[in-house]
Amino acid sequence: MYAVIMAGGTGTRFWPLSRERFPKQFLSIFGSESMIQQTTERISPLIPYNDIYIVTNPHYAEEIKHLHPVLNDKLGDNFIIEPLGRNTAPALGLAALYLKKADPDGIMVAMPADHVIEDEKSFLEALKSGDSIAQKGSLVTIGIKPTGPETGYGYIKYGIKDTNALDEDKGFYDVESFVEKPTLDKAKHYIKTGGYLWNTGIFIWKVSVFLNEIKTHMPELYKGLELIEEVIGTKDEEDVVAKVYSGLKPESVDYGIMEKAKNVVVIPSSFGWNDVGSWKALDDLLEKDTEGNIIYGNVISIDSSNSILYGGKRLVAAVGIDHTIVVDTDDATLVCPKDRAQDVKKIVQVLKERDAAECFTHKTVYRPWGLYTVLEKGNGFKIRKLEVKPGASLGLHRHIRRSEHWIVVSGKAKVTVDDRVCLLGASESIFIPIKVKYGLENPYSEFLHIIEVQCGDYLEEDDIEVFNEQERVVQ
Amino acid sequence: MYAVIMAGGTGTRFWPLSRERFPKQFLSIFGSESMIQQTTERISPLIPYNDIYIVTNPHYAEEIKHLHPVLNDKLGDNFIIEPLGRNTAPALGLAALYLKKADPDGIMVAMPADHVIEDEKSFLEALKSGDSIAQKGSLVTIGIKPTGPETGYGYIKYGIKDTNALDEDKGFYDVESFVEKPTLDKAKHYIKTGGYLWNTGIFIWKVSVFLNEIKTHMPELYKGLELIEEVIGTKDEEDVVAKVYSGLKPESVDYGIMEKAKNVVVIPSSFGWNDVGSWKALDDLLEKDTEGNIIYGNVISIDSSNSILYGGKRLVAAVGIDHTIVVDTDDATLVCPKDRAQDVKKIVQVLKERDAAECFTHKTVYRPWGLYTVLEKGNGFKIRKLEVKPGASLGLHRHIRRSEHWIVVSGKAKVTVDDRVCLLGASESIFIPIKVKYGLENPYSEFLHIIEVQCGDYLEEDDIEVFNEQERVVQ
Repeated sequence: MYAVIMAGGTGTRFWPLSRERFPKQFLSIFGSESMIQQTTERISPLIPYNDIYIVTNPHYAEEIKHLHPVLNDKLGDNFIIEPLGRNTAPALGLAALYLKKADPDGIMVAMPADHVIEDEKSFLEALKSGDSIAQKGSLVTIGIKPTGPETGYGYIKYGIKDTNALDEDKGFYDVESFVEKPTLDKAKHYIKTGGYLWNTGIFIWKVSVFLNEIKTHMPELYKGLELIEEVIGTKDEEDVVAKVYSGLKPESVDYGIMEKAKNVVVIPSSFGWNDVGSWKALDDLLEKDTEGNIIYGNVISIDSSNSILYGGKRLVAAVGIDHTIVVDTDDATLVCPKDRAQDVKKIVQVLKERDAAECFTHKTVYRPWGLYTVLEKGNGFKIRKLEVKPGASLGLHRHIRRSEHWIVVSGKAKVTVDDRVCLLGASESIFIPIKVKYGLENPYSEFLHIIEVQCGDYLEEDDIEVFNEQERVVQ
Repeated sequence: MYAVIMAGGTGTRFWPLSRERFPKQFLSIFGSESMIQQTTERISPLIPYNDIYIVTNPHYAEEIKHLHPVLNDKLGDNFIIEPLGRNTAPALGLAALYLKKADPDGIMVAMPADHVIEDEKSFLEALKSGDSIAQKGSLVTIGIKPTGPETGYGYIKYGIKDTNALDEDKGFYDVESFVEKPTLDKAKHYIKTGGYLWNTGIFIWKVSVFLNEIKTHMPELYKGLELIEEVIGTKDEEDVVAKVYSGLKPESVDYGIMEKAKNVVVIPSSFGWNDVGSWKALDDLLEKDTEGNIIYGNVISIDSSNSILYGGKRLVAAVGIDHTIVVDTDDATLVCPKDRAQDVKKIVQVLKERDAAECFTHKTVYRPWGLYTVLEKGNGFKIRKLEVKPGASLGLHRHIRRSEHWIVVSGKAKVTVDDRVCLLGASESIFIPIKVKYGLENPYSEFLHIIEVQCGDYLEEDDIEVFNEQERVVQ
């Protein structure tokens, strides 16, 4: 059994907490770990890390290295890189292709990286049932017994003609049809009549069976995959994947395969599943105060009710608001009634059109050596706070258009400037002139905090010349 | 004719834009100038700056020097300092006492510093009418003909027994009673029946007449004023004022004098007056977009309506909100439905109880030499950005528990460290060790911008030893 975790989603609906370079699956809203970490750990009792793959784009694979070094170590090379997002059908097709090399009759479990599942045991039980059904050649999907007339989920209508008829709690059903997100009236009708399950986007199938279904229902995708298969492991692989992907049209596996295939079954389950589709989802997942508010961070609430007040370091003060979402980050604040939570993505669209930094990154950016926060940018200067992990280092590099002052505020730094090595302690500083080669190490057991003041006429991150290609991403 | 501008109000209802050390009268929401500046300039065609006095507390007098150096120069020594706020009756009593010295039969026009008046000409006309009536010994107040059933204002009920009967537009009426802020029903009744005006808190009277009324209706205050009168101009003045004030009970001039005096008349006026009592007042004063929103600063609004979105440098994004106030500053954000605008002061109360910086100061603080912004505070360090005006200087001083790095990012600095003088240009820096005496000058015509990184175990503003008492406030 192999797990394929789909981690290419941009999660624009969790802005401003999510950013293009820090998508929803990296957020730690539900517990101390991020959703992608939780998803991976959740499945690891059933499928060892060795057999867990993450399919995502090169940026997010890079970010996982920075943000989740432990997870990254466990997964090793198990990243399947898509040059572009083309929805779930190509992503899972590509993953199946790689798995086929190792084990064409293996069972592949595909799931999104950014869902919440409360009852891990029931979840793993459902996957085990799925495994045994998939062995026989079915495409298996997991459906959730609805707890209410949700309009934010797709539904699966199941048939009563199940020939393997087991009792509902253990069994599975033939799928009659996949139904788009319904209106409230329709959703209510589904609940009343029964026979409908929420569509989780979790699938279980034999690698060979799935590839065969692609051949039947998505012949163009299959042709592309054949081209890729020929070059896997060769120097042409990256180029061919890029070329094939640029010609693919985005398609979901639901629409491209599941709705058309004959051998689709669904396992009805109840393991406290939530796809965390918008800020409103917090209502179902986090604890509320007596007025129905979910409050996090530096928040003062007076007479507020049924609201989500998600602050950070800065103060958020809410007086008398109701059913409202307020999310505050270092550089942007969102205010939105709960029933408009789906429209947060419209803000991200506007920001993208403006090429505004607030949709791409946070003020704090994670790096393999630690993290940095941009404290201020002004005419001719930029100030960053650097946190360098014990044992970490920033390799030798230089800047052509800026000088830098480094002031150590805590910890100790070993700084190399040209061929000179200096040791700096708290309140000591060093000046690095324009064009001078320098590097930084923290060979000590304590974290190192440095205030960096850049001065120059051009202060973007791309003014950097690195003297060791492996260090290219460090700054 | 003398003007007395009352500028002691803390304006907690404009938080987070107003702070205890940056009250409403200092805000420039309506035009490029602050309300206290606008108030002073508005009256100056009728009363020269020489005869305009500001009554306020010592902190605000100091802040006026920093924030409004031009205004401060024009006013010279015309500050009447109250050691404590005791509402309007003591403030105007004290002012009358000082005016009595110069001109006991002078006419005193008293007004709040933080109101908006649209039609300056009509306003000055009303004051002139007031002058001629006050000459005859009346206590004159200005009433505004209501444009709607406002519940945020007090009302003045006027009598029809006016013996000087002029026509309404030029005339005045005897005051029958002062009425507290009414319920909506009552306010509607006032509008329907007529005979009511909004109470502006603008008064015109002869100094001697007013002091006499205090003697009659507020004998305790009068006793206190007598004690002060004896020591005006002596070295005991400050102490006696402090002692008298500590024993006074807060009282408004409306309640203490106007409601009790016999010779009170009101001039009905229509000069577009607004007391700017809460964020909601912006509705009547600023231009709206087609959806009824007032938008200022870095704001993205999607499908929002009838809202006040007052942003700063950081991004505020509002989706689908209605009748809501969002105010964003560097360190705090307010979200509040319009009909709860009066309750913003409750947030300030909570902050005061917590002794939280967000109710006292902004991140940017004005000083005689320019301004500074606290960019970051952390364990063992603080970063400030300094802007030093051309020709300005920070006098010699030293710190006992912190060292400082100064990095010039634009302009040029003349830095004295011990007896050494250095000239620093952009991207140059200097280190000032603990306990070393230093000073800074900007003798050039360009603004000087410096990034200051403080390192030490104690980083508060009170760790400063100044070598020239006059410079005590500079840092």
